[in-house]
Amino acid sequence: MSKSLRRRGKRSQSISEPKSEFGELATKDVPDSPRQPQKIPSYGTKKCHESRNSLFSSKSGFVAYRGFLNLCVILLAVSNARMFLENVLKYGILVDPFQWLSTVMDNPYQWPNVILMLCSNVFILAAFYIEIAIARGRVSSSHGSILHVLNIILVVLIPPVQVLMLEPDPIGSLFSCGTYAIVFMKLWSYAHTNSWYREEYIKTSNQNKKLRRTSSLPSRDLEKLKNKQIEVKYPYNLTVKNLYYFMFAPTLCYELNYPRTERIRKSFLFRRLIEVLFLLQLELALCQQWIVPTLQKAIVPIHQLDATRMLERLLRLSIPNHFMWLIFFYWFFHSVLNVLAEVLRFADREFYRDWWNSETIVYFWKAWNIPVHKFCTRHVYKPLLTRGYSKFTAQLIVFLLSAFFHEYLVSVPLHVFKLWAFMGMVGQLPLAALTDWMSKRFSPHYGNMLVWTSLIIGQPMAVLAYVYYYYVLRFGGVSDEIQF
Amino acid sequence: MSKSLRRRGKRSQSISEPKSEFGELATKDVPDSPRQPQKIPSYGTKKCHESRNSLFSSKSGFVAYRGFLNLCVILLAVSNARMFLENVLKYGILVDPFQWLSTVMDNPYQWPNVILMLCSNVFILAAFYIEIAIARGRVSSSHGSILHVLNIILVVLIPPVQVLMLEPDPIGSLFSCGTYAIVFMKLWSYAHTNSWYREEYIKTSNQNKKLRRTSSLPSRDLEKLKNKQIEVKYPYNLTVKNLYYFMFAPTLCYELNYPRTERIRKSFLFRRLIEVLFLLQLELALCQQWIVPTLQKAIVPIHQLDATRMLERLLRLSIPNHFMWLIFFYWFFHSVLNVLAEVLRFADREFYRDWWNSETIVYFWKAWNIPVHKFCTRHVYKPLLTRGYSKFTAQLIVFLLSAFFHEYLVSVPLHVFKLWAFMGMVGQLPLAALTDWMSKRFSPHYGNMLVWTSLIIGQPMAVLAYVYYYYVLRFGGVSDEIQF
Repeated sequence: MSKSLRRRGKRSQSISEPKSEFGELATKDVPDSPRQPQKIPSYGTKKCHESRNSLFSSKSGFVAYRGFLNLCVILLAVSNARMFLENVLKYGILVDPFQWLSTVMDNPYQWPNVILMLCSNVFILAAFYIEIAIARGRVSSSHGSILHVLNIILVVLIPPVQVLMLEPDPIGSLFSCGTYAIVFMKLWSYAHTNSWYREEYIKTSNQNKKLRRTSSLPSRDLEKLKNKQIEVKYPYNLTVKNLYYFMFAPTLCYELNYPRTERIRKSFLFRRLIEVLFLLQLELALCQQWIVPTLQKAIVPIHQLDATRMLERLLRLSIPNHFMWLIFFYWFFHSVLNVLAEVLRFADREFYRDWWNSETIVYFWKAWNIPVHKFCTRHVYKPLLTRGYSKFTAQLIVFLLSAFFHEYLVSVPLHVFKLWAFMGMVGQLPLAALTDWMSKRFSPHYGNMLVWTSLIIGQPMAVLAYVYYYYVLRFGGVSDEIQF
Repeated sequence: MSKSLRRRGKRSQSISEPKSEFGELATKDVPDSPRQPQKIPSYGTKKCHESRNSLFSSKSGFVAYRGFLNLCVILLAVSNARMFLENVLKYGILVDPFQWLSTVMDNPYQWPNVILMLCSNVFILAAFYIEIAIARGRVSSSHGSILHVLNIILVVLIPPVQVLMLEPDPIGSLFSCGTYAIVFMKLWSYAHTNSWYREEYIKTSNQNKKLRRTSSLPSRDLEKLKNKQIEVKYPYNLTVKNLYYFMFAPTLCYELNYPRTERIRKSFLFRRLIEVLFLLQLELALCQQWIVPTLQKAIVPIHQLDATRMLERLLRLSIPNHFMWLIFFYWFFHSVLNVLAEVLRFADREFYRDWWNSETIVYFWKAWNIPVHKFCTRHVYKPLLTRGYSKFTAQLIVFLLSAFFHEYLVSVPLHVFKLWAFMGMVGQLPLAALTDWMSKRFSPHYGNMLVWTSLIIGQPMAVLAYVYYYYVLRFGGVSDEIQF
């Protein structure tokens, strides 16, 4: 980029320099007019025309249109400034920073989702004691695995049951479902990784014939070792503290020893904390000021199946929705996870790669959410490969699992079991083939643009569909109140 | 550009390749965490965390954000598709391709502007006979110059007089004023260039002492020479045909021999003609569907001096206005002038340079309109320099002349003599200093963005101001009809 910039800068400078004489203007090869301008010796100094093509003609060979990209940026800024002004003029200031506080405080003794989230500790401790039991030889390895599987199946089943029984607030439910999905993956990783360590440990101890205490834990020595930050080895890692460090750490993959930072950088932490608070408030403001009025106006066209208005609403929603998604991405994957990592002195900060440059959908899915991608590769894709499944089958299973969790996080909080999120994920497969073909056949930029388009248009389609069904289910039809 | 694209493509490919093992992920130098992850020999294969910074952290040194530029392009397309749909839903289809035809045909025997444009031939022929008279020695060179100056002064004075007397349609007046401005510059160039040729001719003939027929024209020989496309020499160029070729040629600088193409390329001509017709229709449609409703809604806020709404209207107008300007630029400087040039086999097609990459306002003014820029340099700037004026004074005079013609082309057709176009041009001077400073101090891209911003925001400000005053003058206030 910087190289091309310098090249362009130099070229344009050489053009923009004032010419001392028109006759000195750079002569270009003009293939379509072979008759070169002839020299007129006596009046040469007054000559000012030369055989040349216009730049836009394909024969000119001119390709430097970088300035038009800058135009796009400016036009985008101008049109969004206008939309912001129009919105404020139409609806006034709808932002109320304390609305969420009043919603939460409304009934402080009935927080079903907070209680649910606290309940997740039961399953975490259950996983811990299963692991201890296996390590001490009280349960066989295969029985322990069955117990682990039962435990994590309960983890994903609890939130739907709670939602169906108590019908709590959908936003609170989203948080508790998200928490349970994370706990599910973390406990899976904990059980899976410990089983690897156990196998290694047994193999090593059989070889060395030195360690005989396979089935007993020297708990006092363990504490000492832990405090000194010496490398932990199995089974000394099986402590509640070690498990809870993993539960809070910004990763879904359990490991004996994580890379750690030397100290907590206070200024870094402070900046990230400010971001967490400011961006959260900004998301709320965007939602109140921009998304909610747009969504409310969209219900009626969907109900009347007015295709043109539906499309207009979809496009209108797509831009604030996309901004919210971008801010959410930065907020969660950069600010929140870095705060967590800084506090826990967790040194692996690769929470995302450069998905914004994705030329294919496959790269996007690999790059935007590294914790989940790592988990899927380490605990699903590779184990399937080692069991003899083909690459394609393994990839498909990862995709279907991912699709299931997308559906889970939308359907359960909203009570709308329509499989749209699942189908949306399955729809990524043909899209992946298309972006791959476009990037290879044409330019990587076209593939990248298609990835962006699918993000910008795909998400609001799903949002509109789910919100519409939520309203219909909730109010049994379109009420007058939301007809603006 | 293409180089940077390839570089980016390569880098991203190397990232997007599936890793055979997480342990193989490229290790980055992480300056803030000197403690490198230590090797764990026995469990090494299960290791999946490394000390790494997030890409958005300044310490990661990551700069490849090219994908976000593609996002801007897509967002622009989406938001304009929405605006188009909203507009059609709000106003219906306002485009009427035959409106202009009915306006023109309304009163076919009173076309004041067509008659005015035909009258320009009087001044063209006058210039021709003045030149002939000088060449034949019937008028001295200095008296001839005075006659030429009187002639071209009349050329610029006729349209305002006609407008004030007959009050014709403003759009027709714009065309006739434009024609007269072009005739003014062409006749200036004709007289100026011929005076150079005459001096050269006299000098050469005095030296050679061969040619004695300085004051008589061999008209029969001249015709023969002209038809054979042999190089024309002074005074054989002084024919009506030669002058009219110049009057129609897409240049404002007279020359004895222009570079010519061998033949008329029919497919090129056909494509340009299709562009001329299609883009003209598109401009009319954009104007009817988008500009007129926006302008009508803007009159009231300006009248009430409602600042927020005025700004909203200004930003709303700026986007269609800019699109119209871009289309107009392509239509006139690429399509129309190339059609003219192709028909006349005129080989110098440099009607514009890459102004879209302008890093300074000065380069923009030098590059966007090459015929006028050439005229100003050849007939105003350089002659002033040779007469001993400083560069700054010469540049200032060119700017003021240009400002005068901008004002002329707006004020005369609209009857609004407010000097805003003139002031707008004068305002380019501080802007030039600012863009120059930004390009040098920061990045050339910032200079380029400032140039675009001044184009996008500056033009609709002037349009709003003039249209408002035109309405107020015409209707003596804001009528109910335009209050929608």
